[in-house]
Amino acid sequence: MKPIFLQNASELITLKGLSNAPLVKPVESDLSIIQNGSVLIDNGTILAVGQTTELKEMYPEKTSAADVIDASGSLVTPGFVEPHTHLVFAGSREKEFVMRLKGASYMDIMNAGGGIYATTEQTRLASHQQLYTQSFERLDRLMKQGVTTVEAKSGYGLDLENEKKQLEVARELNQKHALDLVSTFMGAHAVPSFYKQNPDEFIAYLINDVLPVIAKEGLAEFNDVFCENGVFTVEQSRRVLEAGKRLGLSPKIHADELESYGGAELAAELEAVSADHLLCASDKGIDQMAAAGVVAVLLPGTAFFLQKKMANARKMIDRGVPLALSTDCNPGSSPTVSTALMMNFGCLQMGMTPAEVLVAVTINAAHAINRGSLIGSIEVGKKADLLLFSVPTHHHLHYHFGENHVKSVIKNGVVRVKEGMLI
Amino acid sequence: MKPIFLQNASELITLKGLSNAPLVKPVESDLSIIQNGSVLIDNGTILAVGQTTELKEMYPEKTSAADVIDASGSLVTPGFVEPHTHLVFAGSREKEFVMRLKGASYMDIMNAGGGIYATTEQTRLASHQQLYTQSFERLDRLMKQGVTTVEAKSGYGLDLENEKKQLEVARELNQKHALDLVSTFMGAHAVPSFYKQNPDEFIAYLINDVLPVIAKEGLAEFNDVFCENGVFTVEQSRRVLEAGKRLGLSPKIHADELESYGGAELAAELEAVSADHLLCASDKGIDQMAAAGVVAVLLPGTAFFLQKKMANARKMIDRGVPLALSTDCNPGSSPTVSTALMMNFGCLQMGMTPAEVLVAVTINAAHAINRGSLIGSIEVGKKADLLLFSVPTHHHLHYHFGENHVKSVIKNGVVRVKEGMLI
Ligand SMILES: [Zn+2]
Ligand SMILES: [Zn+2]
Repeated sequence: MKPIFLQNASELITLKGLSNAPLVKPVESDLSIIQNGSVLIDNGTILAVGQTTELKEMYPEKTSAADVIDASGSLVTPGFVEPHTHLVFAGSREKEFVMRLKGASYMDIMNAGGGIYATTEQTRLASHQQLYTQSFERLDRLMKQGVTTVEAKSGYGLDLENEKKQLEVARELNQKHALDLVSTFMGAHAVPSFYKQNPDEFIAYLINDVLPVIAKEGLAEFNDVFCENGVFTVEQSRRVLEAGKRLGLSPKIHADELESYGGAELAAELEAVSADHLLCASDKGIDQMAAAGVVAVLLPGTAFFLQKKMANARKMIDRGVPLALSTDCNPGSSPTVSTALMMNFGCLQMGMTPAEVLVAVTINAAHAINRGSLIGSIEVGKKADLLLFSVPTHHHLHYHFGENHVKSVIKNGVVRVKEGMLI
Repeated sequence: MKPIFLQNASELITLKGLSNAPLVKPVESDLSIIQNGSVLIDNGTILAVGQTTELKEMYPEKTSAADVIDASGSLVTPGFVEPHTHLVFAGSREKEFVMRLKGASYMDIMNAGGGIYATTEQTRLASHQQLYTQSFERLDRLMKQGVTTVEAKSGYGLDLENEKKQLEVARELNQKHALDLVSTFMGAHAVPSFYKQNPDEFIAYLINDVLPVIAKEGLAEFNDVFCENGVFTVEQSRRVLEAGKRLGLSPKIHADELESYGGAELAAELEAVSADHLLCASDKGIDQMAAAGVVAVLLPGTAFFLQKKMANARKMIDRGVPLALSTDCNPGSSPTVSTALMMNFGCLQMGMTPAEVLVAVTINAAHAINRGSLIGSIEVGKKADLLLFSVPTHHHLHYHFGENHVKSVIKNGVVRVKEGMLI
């Protein structure tokens, strides 16, 4: 593989020095911007970062032998990291969305065969190959938006066979698609109808019959639960997350999305990697998350799509919680692949600054999936995951909202998107 | 020019029969959807619309001689019409946006050289050629989003020479760029500093010295005014719009954006083609607009970017006002080119249905610039402005928010965008 020399970026956002821990309150200087910046890539890895003239002097042979990518007039950033998606599923639920817009109630939609159980049914019916094909296409769409690493949860199987199937599809996608995937087991996504009267039994089934297999086969790195009134209680959530922990799966939590329910507090107690959603997190929970160093993964697309008020990012940052932003890409509550729009929401609806938003979709997002030392910044030794934009500075990225400004995507040192097209 | 035969669209949205007047409360049947639909294009114009087999039988020679575009699995709609933009301007104001996000007040920004006067200064300093080049690039971006006709306002010159310059640039763009432009004179966009103490004198200057030249040289078709407390009063607005009317320029109004100020009422009184913004329009004003048949052009991007509540689309429709949606594309309050995002806002923040939204960006938008008989629907005799999407039905367009699903753009019978790329 020939080296790549990306040169002359008008703004090269390196985010240097943030690989050890997520950053709580980034300011512009934390972006560590290099003007007229260059990156030398060798073997899929970043070999050197600096000003163009500087790198040419330091590596005369490599830079002249390299494939040159001219980034004149362009912003260059680390690839976007999506730390919260439900990528692997079958089917589509646009019809229930249209019903909802016309005023249908939750019960109307359930009666019409909608909701999470609709996706579960379709995912169960789908073959491995069908799931793979549909999810592959979704990864392509994400890549065009500048995403280079994707966390993918199971949770539409709700039994051993089908949870495994989802995670096996994710594993194959990780091997065969250019993007990197990080897998999360989320058997505790909903109570399946068979256990409707006995959610505790379902939790026991997950702990005794499912989690051990997932762990043994190395199918997931994280264990997530939908901790919410009417889904799983704090106590049930604790039980399943602790069981996962014992098997080596790090906890994550869907917390306090619909009401203040103690999810943030539980995340702090268990030292979860992240707590996600948090629209209704209590001040106490937020403070405990700050103390425990739990990353808050906020999902403004879900709030937008469900027509709710977005999470109070400003308050969380000000109270000391490090933030990441993600699409929550899923067929029910956030059928989007646009990191750019999440960034716009961050600035315009959640009180975040451009610097806070950029950190939230790169290095902090990497920390939210325990990848801070590998991705999320442009530093020597890290994976060569880079984006080249059609705008000259990151301010334009936030200013020209509603547009995908990604021009080129370099993933693991290979150009995968050029002029906005997959290649 | 060879005929084009676009065939087998999974959903062909024709919007048939709405060319005479804007539609107030569209339902799904008003979209006049043809499944497995085809369009035969000859000489830049739509020659026939129907099912694929039907058209092949009716026009055996033309369809077999034509360039075939296969739309299998794809939604096809009329090209998007943008009835409200400030397309022609120089410079960029991302810095003041970032200041605002960090808490700067309106006065801080003005003192730092921001605001509308910053754009006016840069537009005055720019040569015809510079303005042309910057605006051409913006039209390309709009075209990639599926826009095929753009209304463009002056209003960053604020004197005869520079207002003329903007409109001359728009005229040249209309001749040379693939998109069609429709020009609006908006000398009454702001009170220039020279007239700060005497806005009435500025209005007199516009009426006596500017409007007659614009009209004589045929540089604009519409006359618009920023009717708002602190800008132009209702009385001043009436004066300048009536003067334009006498010269053959149809009135448009920036109405009730910041407070309920009588703009909607004035639009009804003058039988304006449209009243735009309307975030604070009174019920009385809305009812009068309904009675007078004035189109409400709503600009959710502006509300989003200025962090305000969006206009009450639902109420307007229910009270009988026909709606259009537009980006308001401009450097200060809505630096976006995404019709798709305006559509998402329509459904998710403004209480509109998918059918209402589709009508608002096509045929009703065409009516808002007096082009209902030429564009905005797929009907025999109309301009062949068509979009082909990467989704199969219009429901997916609303459901998969935050993404530009436009795959191909056909403008005046010529393919201008293919696989998302300008060609
Ligand atoms: Zn989720
Ligand atoms: Zn405007």
